[in-house]
Amino acid sequence: MNYYYDYKEFILDAKKLTKDIDYEFDTIIAIARGGLTLSHILGEHYNIRKVYSINTIGYDNNQKLNNIKIFNIPDLKDSKNILIVDDIIDSGDTLKLVLDTLYEKYPNCTFKSASIFSKKTASIQPDWYIQEAKEWIDFFWSISTYPKD
Amino acid sequence: MNYYYDYKEFILDAKKLTKDIDYEFDTIIAIARGGLTLSHILGEHYNIRKVYSINTIGYDNNQKLNNIKIFNIPDLKDSKNILIVDDIIDSGDTLKLVLDTLYEKYPNCTFKSASIFSKKTASIQPDWYIQEAKEWIDFFWSISTYPKD
Repeated sequence: MNYYYDYKEFILDAKKLTKDIDYEFDTIIAIARGGLTLSHILGEHYNIRKVYSINTIGYDNNQKLNNIKIFNIPDLKDSKNILIVDDIIDSGDTLKLVLDTLYEKYPNCTFKSASIFSKKTASIQPDWYIQEAKEWIDFFWSISTYPKD
Repeated sequence: MNYYYDYKEFILDAKKLTKDIDYEFDTIIAIARGGLTLSHILGEHYNIRKVYSINTIGYDNNQKLNNIKIFNIPDLKDSKNILIVDDIIDSGDTLKLVLDTLYEKYPNCTFKSASIFSKKTASIQPDWYIQEAKEWIDFFWSISTYPKD
């Protein structure tokens, strides 16, 4: 049974996030694609124009599945405090790799992370999240699962 | 009187866009922030992982207002056909500058553009859009205008 996550719940959760996040940041990075809509709503809320994306893709490596490659790493030379956002922290591998990659490239920046959902079993937790994910989630930004299709 | 554009209308308009767009593309670029949510939903629909953002900011230049600066130009060396998306084409100046900038940097790529809204008075029209904008639009991704605040 999938859980359908609709935009009303998303707006309420995004509002909760803005109340929880006690961190001043100048840049938002969405882990694409999942974090894009959240980055949009937070960028509008905080009136931050530096809303970037960073992209990941899984690939096979000698039959070891679930390796992740990062691309489209944004130029952060004019940034100092960054909030990384995603829709869900699942295994935590993607967030960990994004954080490791960005810290290595920009050791003088501060990176914090926020998501709507996180799983208890994730290898890393974001600094802020709203809901624990216990089942598969169909997000409203997937047209194919839109109930009124 | 502002027009409130909610997510239900957005989902329907995004679906219409996917029916109208007769163009095969490998990359989506959101003009941030306005195009971010649309880029997310289209990226999911077409299963495209190369969803990037490009950013603009207005600045003053010798008292001539409304100059636009572009930053965070994505690396398109692995892209060929690109769809640029925004929520609304207003004056058209931003889209024009984005197109000019990207064509100059990547003359061998093809760029097409899509938006939800466009204004008749815009200096340039996107290749595809759904609605004509006749008044100020409050988009659902602005928490502050969420009706059930």
